[in-house]
Amino acid sequence: MSRHVFLPKVFHNAIGLGDPVLTVDDGDTVVTQTIDAWGFDASGEQVAIRPNPMTGPFFVRGAEPGDTLEVMIDRMTPSRTTGWTFAPVASNVVDPAITSSLPERGRSIWTLDHGGRVARLAEASAALQHWTVPVRPMIGCFGVAPALNQAISTATSGPYGGNMDYPLFAPGTRAQFPVSLSGALFYLGDGHASQGDGELVGNGIETSFEVEFTTRVLKGRRIGWPRGETLDEIFTVGNARPLDQALQHATTELINWLTTDFGLDLVEASHVLGQCVQFDIANVYNPAYSVACRLPRKAIPSIRQKAPL
Amino acid sequence: MSRHVFLPKVFHNAIGLGDPVLTVDDGDTVVTQTIDAWGFDASGEQVAIRPNPMTGPFFVRGAEPGDTLEVMIDRMTPSRTTGWTFAPVASNVVDPAITSSLPERGRSIWTLDHGGRVARLAEASAALQHWTVPVRPMIGCFGVAPALNQAISTATSGPYGGNMDYPLFAPGTRAQFPVSLSGALFYLGDGHASQGDGELVGNGIETSFEVEFTTRVLKGRRIGWPRGETLDEIFTVGNARPLDQALQHATTELINWLTTDFGLDLVEASHVLGQCVQFDIANVYNPAYSVACRLPRKAIPSIRQKAPL
Amino acid sequence: MSRHVFLPKVFHNAIGLGDPVLTVDDGDTVVTQTIDAWGFDASGEQVAIRPNPMTGPFFVRGAEPGDTLEVMIDRMTPSRTTGWTFAPVASNVVDPAITSSLPERGRSIWTLDHGGRVARLAEASAALQHWTVPVRPMIGCFGVAPALNQAISTATSGPYGGNMDYPLFAPGTRAQFPVSLSGALFYLGDGHASQGDGELVGNGIETSFEVEFTTRVLKGRRIGWPRGETLDEIFTVGNARPLDQALQHATTELINWLTTDFGLDLVEASHVLGQCVQFDIANVYNPAYSVACRLPRKAIPSIRQKAPL
Amino acid sequence: MSRHVFLPKVFHNAIGLGDPVLTVDDGDTVVTQTIDAWGFDASGEQVAIRPNPMTGPFFVRGAEPGDTLEVMIDRMTPSRTTGWTFAPVASNVVDPAITSSLPERGRSIWTLDHGGRVARLAEASAALQHWTVPVRPMIGCFGVAPALNQAISTATSGPYGGNMDYPLFAPGTRAQFPVSLSGALFYLGDGHASQGDGELVGNGIETSFEVEFTTRVLKGRRIGWPRGETLDEIFTVGNARPLDQALQHATTELINWLTTDFGLDLVEASHVLGQCVQFDIANVYNPAYSVACRLPRKAIPSIRQKAPL
Repeated sequence: MSRHVFLPKVFHNAIGLGDPVLTVDDGDTVVTQTIDAWGFDASGEQVAIRPNPMTGPFFVRGAEPGDTLEVMIDRMTPSRTTGWTFAPVASNVVDPAITSSLPERGRSIWTLDHGGRVARLAEASAALQHWTVPVRPMIGCFGVAPALNQAISTATSGPYGGNMDYPLFAPGTRAQFPVSLSGALFYLGDGHASQGDGELVGNGIETSFEVEFTTRVLKGRRIGWPRGETLDEIFTVGNARPLDQALQHATTELINWLTTDFGLDLVEASHVLGQCVQFDIANVYNPAYSVACRLPRKAIPSIRQKAPL
Repeated sequence: MSRHVFLPKVFHNAIGLGDPVLTVDDGDTVVTQTIDAWGFDASGEQVAIRPNPMTGPFFVRGAEPGDTLEVMIDRMTPSRTTGWTFAPVASNVVDPAITSSLPERGRSIWTLDHGGRVARLAEASAALQHWTVPVRPMIGCFGVAPALNQAISTATSGPYGGNMDYPLFAPGTRAQFPVSLSGALFYLGDGHASQGDGELVGNGIETSFEVEFTTRVLKGRRIGWPRGETLDEIFTVGNARPLDQALQHATTELINWLTTDFGLDLVEASHVLGQCVQFDIANVYNPAYSVACRLPRKAIPSIRQKAPL
Repeated sequence: MSRHVFLPKVFHNAIGLGDPVLTVDDGDTVVTQTIDAWGFDASGEQVAIRPNPMTGPFFVRGAEPGDTLEVMIDRMTPSRTTGWTFAPVASNVVDPAITSSLPERGRSIWTLDHGGRVARLAEASAALQHWTVPVRPMIGCFGVAPALNQAISTATSGPYGGNMDYPLFAPGTRAQFPVSLSGALFYLGDGHASQGDGELVGNGIETSFEVEFTTRVLKGRRIGWPRGETLDEIFTVGNARPLDQALQHATTELINWLTTDFGLDLVEASHVLGQCVQFDIANVYNPAYSVACRLPRKAIPSIRQKAPL
Repeated sequence: MSRHVFLPKVFHNAIGLGDPVLTVDDGDTVVTQTIDAWGFDASGEQVAIRPNPMTGPFFVRGAEPGDTLEVMIDRMTPSRTTGWTFAPVASNVVDPAITSSLPERGRSIWTLDHGGRVARLAEASAALQHWTVPVRPMIGCFGVAPALNQAISTATSGPYGGNMDYPLFAPGTRAQFPVSLSGALFYLGDGHASQGDGELVGNGIETSFEVEFTTRVLKGRRIGWPRGETLDEIFTVGNARPLDQALQHATTELINWLTTDFGLDLVEASHVLGQCVQFDIANVYNPAYSVACRLPRKAIPSIRQKAPL
């Protein structure tokens, strides 16, 4: 189980069909750099084009179609002291009748203060002068090569992952993706220093990061949509429009998980979901919206509950 | 500010156009009984028909069109020791391709144990034998007479409230509704002992309650959709299909709130929502789905933040 | 089978719970007046308020819950020489990103020329100086009292009919509605001199009409959504948001029709729909959108095809 | 302007990034073969895998990013005498509550009779024994390389075209696609002998064809979504879920067309659409649904109407 340090030179705006930049073994750890959604790196230089240029792909030995690639997000350290967002909110998240009253969208710079623990607007209006938000790093876009030899823009997402913009894809989470190609071909990028639910302004606080992650191949574990595990929770993510369909994908995937790995039947799984499930609207902005279906571990009947993997 | 005890004799399956059962003053408290979604009361007797028979309407003196009626949910005490739910999950919350594999829906009885602090299935399968959920009472359906002299089924919801099935409409929350008729005509019912996000099985743990609530007329405060306030948070609820539109209503209403009452402009409100908003999918089952747009009070810039009313 | 001439004095902005203005027998014909969507009558005087003030309700003897009320639209004669529409298109029918570039909505007056056979803008821009559209009268909003003692705004629609804005609800069509109350309580209004698919500008050419219709009670024929029959076609209408759900309702209803009345099983009905069905997007503007599922009579296998009723 | 005869040897299940199989000049005509949606060719042999294996890509000299590639569908001749469909209807086109009552999906063989002018089920039930449908050939899936170096599965569609399953993409129609790569890279396949609106059973009558088409580069004509022109009509196609968004794309594109090429302003274009537009639901089955926004040429004000190109 090696620890690789990888400095990216090329970046990809589509996921799939790229040439691997590094081959790692199952269990290896990688320390690498991600640039921001518009291609600006740690030094503030634009080294790639939008949207969401990816670092990678990483070829993970042993990952074969039908397996699951697990990526433990070990650490995300902002690699510069500024980020950016847009305002006002996107036109599709408010009533159509009021979109014409929204001012034109403009970009704002944020400063990551106090060792990167809080963010504040660099040029704040009076009302926001003393307003800060905690820095909670997350990966906006990551995933593996999609099925059917596709190469899909990093603007959107699907069963293979992609631009899901889900705040729980954060340090401490083990993200899981269905492998469609030998080696999985893992890409990552589009780190956010912070983001509210739904990504209502169309971005999180976009900045560059040093990211450390550890791969793991779950042999023969066949999944349909991205999943995640934290110490306290398990979750699935569905990506589609409208939100209704994203929710259907996520709910179906969580039911599959409960029946396959936790020994529940459909009625038992329904009781658990009916009383204990929580949904997160990850993004309602990208071409595919993302909804997470989340369950506290303590809500899962203990009879056959697996220990954290 | 009186305290009324009201025992309902008649119940309504539509909200609007009913004759008031009690007239109260602004600030009065009412202690009353709600029966369950199928009309079963505290003694287990069916005294009304489905869906969601309502207690009320209560005429609140001083509430006029253009005002807001605030209802503080002071207390909800289950009035019997059993509730019920259905399983499996509703056919519209999973991928259409798998709905044919769902078993037929059946009703399960729950027992409210330990002084009503936890609920467990009365006849649990082996896997759920030791599985309990905490009792967290909430009001599934409540609201005021809708605009335009409508009378709308308690199966659905709208700007006037209705069958929103949102777990945060719970003791400690001040719910707010836009008044369309003199006296507001407030209805309530459909209490749940517990419910997960989305109401995936089509119900919470349905039971009867003793409910205590306090009314307050917010003169001249014009709102568009139901709102709520807790000690720590403010939220709005949008009701529509698909979820996308429910979210648009809720988001628009919260932006209106931030700009009207908290002195933010659209760009400032967008920054706050962009980093700090949280969405809850209240129900994805009823004819109108419900999405809540929620904001921690501490995320609201303090410059002109109002104290809790 | 009498022929009644009825001059309305009162109008309703909600469907359901109104007092009958006239009682007719099964098979009777009624000649009456409808006013426009804003309440302007044949003389251009505003005699009722918006939205869509209805003439009626008519009590049809013999119509009982579980029956179908059929209304043959015999004739629609514009009762004045002007109508109106709004422009530009509604904000929800174009990409959200371009709604802010739409000019403010304004009202345009149309003149019904040549004995009411064509319509043209009263004050046309140069480009539209010689542009006319054929007058094709249709009923925008009609239906019967909804189930569950509801009274629902004429802005929207449901299984009972309502504001469907479907151009095929025109002279020569027999419209069918599910009866929920004794006497059915039939309302009608909101006539259009013309309307494109989707009602993209939010209205047809709104004007007042003399309408002649003939009622018929189809005893024991239980239907779920509005239906229609012309000489050449049969159709069903589903009302909901999003369009996907309106389509599901309409398709389900047409399948039910084919299996119940035409002796097809689900596979046979699927073959017919798969090759021969046509969809119309009636309106994509009202609170509930309307989609029609339409089938040429000649596409229906002849083995048990019923003659036109 | 040459006429090429091209016999495909390789087929693609994704659109984009393929190596050109033939280079043609602007104005050239190509006669080629398409195989069916599962890869069966004129002799009934499976020569490629699903979904929708494409013939091509064809490199069209002179087509550059920012141009439009027009493809005149000159002729489609079925190259075998059988086709196939599935039944019953797809689970997502009916109310979720009834999907569990649908029988399992099975494949049916159709015979193309009378010189390919009508189709009938090879093994028809009694009810469908004498039931035939006219053969109306159409291209289910075609388009050009998408933007951003993507390669996208032929199961779905987007601004570049793809699996739109629109019956009006038929002989006599000039289809237009936005060019993203030099040479456009045009793919085609998935021919249907017939298909109803919505593609409710998930396919048309799938068979192989000899297709003749003529290319034309519209230099500097920048379009956003696929368009089409027939002698009598112009139309645009939007691809997305839900239908509402597909409709928004198509409507926006048609408005852009009217304002750019026909000299109308937004209000004038709105009047035309408001009274004269027609929508077709092309497919409500694929990952992206397709809606066409269609306008009779005679409804377009004549002041600056272009002659057919």
